[in-house]
Amino acid sequence: MGACQSFREMCDREKNTNVRLSLPAVCIVWQTAMIILFGVFIRFQDVHVMIFVGFGFLMTFLKRYSFGGVGFNFLIAAFGLQWALLMQGWFHWLGPDGKIRIGVENLINADFCVAGCLIAYGALLGKVSPVQLMVLTLFGITLFAVEEFIILSVIHARDAGGSMVIHTFGGYYGLSISWMLYRPNLHQSSRLQGSVYHSDVFAMIGTLFLWMFWPSFNSAICDHGDGQHRAAINTYLCLASTVLTTVAISSLFQKHGKLDMVHIQNSTLAGGVAAGTAAEFMLMPYGCLIVGFCCGIISTLGYIFLTPFMEKRLKIQDTCGIHNLHAMPGVVGGIVGAITAASASVEVYGHKGLENTFDFKGKFEDMVPTRQGGHQAAGLCVALCFGIGGGIIVGAILRLPIWGDPADDNCFDDETYWEVPEEEESIPTILQYNNHVQNKDM
Amino acid sequence: MGACQSFREMCDREKNTNVRLSLPAVCIVWQTAMIILFGVFIRFQDVHVMIFVGFGFLMTFLKRYSFGGVGFNFLIAAFGLQWALLMQGWFHWLGPDGKIRIGVENLINADFCVAGCLIAYGALLGKVSPVQLMVLTLFGITLFAVEEFIILSVIHARDAGGSMVIHTFGGYYGLSISWMLYRPNLHQSSRLQGSVYHSDVFAMIGTLFLWMFWPSFNSAICDHGDGQHRAAINTYLCLASTVLTTVAISSLFQKHGKLDMVHIQNSTLAGGVAAGTAAEFMLMPYGCLIVGFCCGIISTLGYIFLTPFMEKRLKIQDTCGIHNLHAMPGVVGGIVGAITAASASVEVYGHKGLENTFDFKGKFEDMVPTRQGGHQAAGLCVALCFGIGGGIIVGAILRLPIWGDPADDNCFDDETYWEVPEEEESIPTILQYNNHVQNKDM
Amino acid sequence: MGACQSFREMCDREKNTNVRLSLPAVCIVWQTAMIILFGVFIRFQDVHVMIFVGFGFLMTFLKRYSFGGVGFNFLIAAFGLQWALLMQGWFHWLGPDGKIRIGVENLINADFCVAGCLIAYGALLGKVSPVQLMVLTLFGITLFAVEEFIILSVIHARDAGGSMVIHTFGGYYGLSISWMLYRPNLHQSSRLQGSVYHSDVFAMIGTLFLWMFWPSFNSAICDHGDGQHRAAINTYLCLASTVLTTVAISSLFQKHGKLDMVHIQNSTLAGGVAAGTAAEFMLMPYGCLIVGFCCGIISTLGYIFLTPFMEKRLKIQDTCGIHNLHAMPGVVGGIVGAITAASASVEVYGHKGLENTFDFKGKFEDMVPTRQGGHQAAGLCVALCFGIGGGIIVGAILRLPIWGDPADDNCFDDETYWEVPEEEESIPTILQYNNHVQNKDM
Repeated sequence: MGACQSFREMCDREKNTNVRLSLPAVCIVWQTAMIILFGVFIRFQDVHVMIFVGFGFLMTFLKRYSFGGVGFNFLIAAFGLQWALLMQGWFHWLGPDGKIRIGVENLINADFCVAGCLIAYGALLGKVSPVQLMVLTLFGITLFAVEEFIILSVIHARDAGGSMVIHTFGGYYGLSISWMLYRPNLHQSSRLQGSVYHSDVFAMIGTLFLWMFWPSFNSAICDHGDGQHRAAINTYLCLASTVLTTVAISSLFQKHGKLDMVHIQNSTLAGGVAAGTAAEFMLMPYGCLIVGFCCGIISTLGYIFLTPFMEKRLKIQDTCGIHNLHAMPGVVGGIVGAITAASASVEVYGHKGLENTFDFKGKFEDMVPTRQGGHQAAGLCVALCFGIGGGIIVGAILRLPIWGDPADDNCFDDETYWEVPEEEESIPTILQYNNHVQNKDM
Repeated sequence: MGACQSFREMCDREKNTNVRLSLPAVCIVWQTAMIILFGVFIRFQDVHVMIFVGFGFLMTFLKRYSFGGVGFNFLIAAFGLQWALLMQGWFHWLGPDGKIRIGVENLINADFCVAGCLIAYGALLGKVSPVQLMVLTLFGITLFAVEEFIILSVIHARDAGGSMVIHTFGGYYGLSISWMLYRPNLHQSSRLQGSVYHSDVFAMIGTLFLWMFWPSFNSAICDHGDGQHRAAINTYLCLASTVLTTVAISSLFQKHGKLDMVHIQNSTLAGGVAAGTAAEFMLMPYGCLIVGFCCGIISTLGYIFLTPFMEKRLKIQDTCGIHNLHAMPGVVGGIVGAITAASASVEVYGHKGLENTFDFKGKFEDMVPTRQGGHQAAGLCVALCFGIGGGIIVGAILRLPIWGDPADDNCFDDETYWEVPEEEESIPTILQYNNHVQNKDM
Repeated sequence: MGACQSFREMCDREKNTNVRLSLPAVCIVWQTAMIILFGVFIRFQDVHVMIFVGFGFLMTFLKRYSFGGVGFNFLIAAFGLQWALLMQGWFHWLGPDGKIRIGVENLINADFCVAGCLIAYGALLGKVSPVQLMVLTLFGITLFAVEEFIILSVIHARDAGGSMVIHTFGGYYGLSISWMLYRPNLHQSSRLQGSVYHSDVFAMIGTLFLWMFWPSFNSAICDHGDGQHRAAINTYLCLASTVLTTVAISSLFQKHGKLDMVHIQNSTLAGGVAAGTAAEFMLMPYGCLIVGFCCGIISTLGYIFLTPFMEKRLKIQDTCGIHNLHAMPGVVGGIVGAITAASASVEVYGHKGLENTFDFKGKFEDMVPTRQGGHQAAGLCVALCFGIGGGIIVGAILRLPIWGDPADDNCFDDETYWEVPEEEESIPTILQYNNHVQNKDM
């Protein structure tokens, strides 16, 4: 009887084990969610810093357009974010009740979306009005949302760091608009189309924040765990080797072997752009170094030879050289992604790894790496088409004479759109100097 | 017998389940603590960056007071932190052994505490000595600790992002001190009371770091999980819409529609201030956009109309315009908080949510939202009283002629308290230019 | 029979408990790994910011060497990181297959490794060519890896924040090289060996990012949990009190009590250096404040008295004053570490705590605190020997006339290695001024 009772007790206790299962389960799920959320949050902060400080200060390099560089970057980012939350919400996050629930992941995606437009701004820096920039952003984000949906969801290309979706699209979007808005007499502003000593140092703030946080950018929306860390480390290695070849080429092609700040500010980042698509693939450390190696060379040579050629022959005026920093490395990244995807194998990734990395699930269950390579290539083409086509259409709209853009001899000048403080400082210095000379003469 | 033995074995095994319960429990508790700690740590880092880089660089905008802006900000923050750790420890964290245990959460609270004093410094920038700033900080933090204790613990108002506790208090504290220290002949320093081109770019570093991390600021001490993320996203949306209306009003009221850097640097942040109290409430995305919308307008109009009026009629000289960036938006935030709290309902928050969000626990178990609204309003009044009253008393102390403050024609000049490098650079340039002219003449 | 069946069912269910154990176990292990990884990742980002923005901008203070300061810092960091990953991989992370697996922890260690070389660069700033810097970095990182291995693994000294391993070694490494490369006619560049107003503000960006993230630096590779948070908070307190004494001494020894930007930029960080070794020990809050207090004094006095003395008598030209910021405080940190370790007791740390903090495990199981103190002192000696010895050898190599270093009257001048934009801006201002004067005259 005692046995029977303890048996019943045991059974009762046994019932409790249901709680023992569900309680830890709930705890674990909740915690996992928290961990991922915190992980996402860190990366969000990093990406956020890149958008506002990185892109903003990278564009302060012009001697008299630093206000416009950092200020309009701030304006269109804040404007674009809101529109991007809506656009991406409609495409990806619409709940059954027709409402969009906003979480940290949406904020990252909005930042990504805005990045495309900020890249395009780089080509137009100093030559457009803030109203034109708002129009560019409005259409740019709409195009981005559609293009991203087609590339990622319809074509099923992978593009974690957005080599194609962000950089190729954004780059050619900006270049096409610049082509449509070609100014034959831009040389009238040429006295302002350069840097001064301290504006170059400001731009280095942008460069460094972009460079440091680029690994977070490329890994922000990867699968958590392995894939995410692989993406971060791959990007990190690409970027490190890009710096070396950029310095090498900059010194090699400049007279007396001097370095050019334009290259250091921009081309050192090309490796991060090119690592975008393949970031979460098995690029292998030496593969990353090779990609970075090549991108530093291509991008710097682009600044030296291609940008002048494009301005002279192709009528494309590219203020920040986004063709060298975003467009070309973006295409390189897309191609690297396609090749790496096509040559993926179960031996290298493992069965599970292959499935996770390339998301061979649902209706793409039967996908094989070689076909995935083709899809990647198709994605790159879509990005190019949207960039160029969209840019031509939006450029045509921006040519309408209603947007308040500056005259050819007012380009690159903050005076046009900003209250600029007068530089009265040097006057006392001159007076002191004159007095000094006069005293000496006496 | 076999059954009996296996039964006994089973019982023994059953004993093991005690470990099965306790081991995961310990693990889970430890991990949860770690997660929260890491979460807190991220936000601490963000808030820390805001205090030192954000506030510091925001105050570098004056042409010859950048050293004082960033340097004294650094000094009083490092000084204030230590005092705040003690003061807040005594009020909130005193252990049974009479000792204060310092954790990451204390560091965040110390940063918050210091923020109030740094805001007050904004009104006095360029017109006080570092010794006066230390006195201001010593009393400011003491007042803050008392005021915060009354508002949060006694009155039981909620104020996650400190619209009332930090911004309203800090703002009016600084303005009252400035009123007590009124300088009728400040115009003698007017040649220095403006920016130069690059000092405005430096100030944008401050603006952007404040803007980007403000969501972390407002959510740093919220309940973890839902409330915290809601606070971050609400603030984010407020800030985004503030940028747009700031630009709009700045352009609308300036001649030729030009933008004013003062507005872009400051008013774009007003939405974050106003979102402070209601950050963790259910403001709804559109509600956030509305709050941000209004704050951008109010704050920018404040810079255009109110600051000159206050200086002329009310004898309040407000160097950084903290009335427009902190004091007014702080009051708006307090009012928004009171209204949102009063209109909270179980339908929107859920039973549990209402209890968690407004902390209806312990001796406030019987609280209802409408009464909570009243408590919020009472909290706002306390913040105002402490700010204005404390400011007048501390201002009176600071008027004593023993603190080494600068003469009226030495204000806004780093020469007073810093070894400033001589600007010899422009002399060779002039010589070059003169030679250039002479060569041309010949 | 029913009882028997339910018994069997129960047994079957009992079998399931194996899953109940293993499933949560796997989950918990995985999660713990994730948490630690995210924790590590945060700190990695912080350290990364210190290396590139912190060290980079700290060296922009010279009036015409800001490009070289931030640019060469960028170059040697990106170069050094890759070499450090290999060197440290060989020493610490070599897998059984002869391959190095790279994780986030390796990236932190690579950053640490590079920090030593960047410190050495501080002594040589403006006087060496980029090629010399690459040679310095190549040897520096190799020496670092060996020295670190001896100190941490062979001698079993603890050095979480690298007072000895990083700062003492890096400091004396740079000073010895500077001694070997002594330039008797450096005064010919003296017109450039100072700051201008805005270059000092740029340097404050570096100071603040170093100051804010130093707690992460010192705690980055500590044991997770208690030790890590203790390290962060100890460092934080040290740094806070250093600021105050730095300001005090700077004002005390300058004529008219004015503050010197050189001290504020550098000496405020000395507390973080000195807290490096003892960061994870039980320093007690007041102990931290005392360490910080002393370091602020020592470091600032170093700038005022020691740096000129060393240049004049010891023929050591130390551009950034790394002796005051890194070398001396590093030695102080090593001594503090030895004393604190020697006086550790089970009463204060607890049995488990003592074992964890000092890693009394494996072949060091029998270690006692007093002996550990001796090992710490031995570690300090090794760091000094490697720094001085290595510096002399590498300095001898760098004296070879093949490295393209600048002439004595071209030091501290970016013109040597960079395309520097012409300062044409001031000319129109002068013209305006002249017109203004002429108009007045008429």
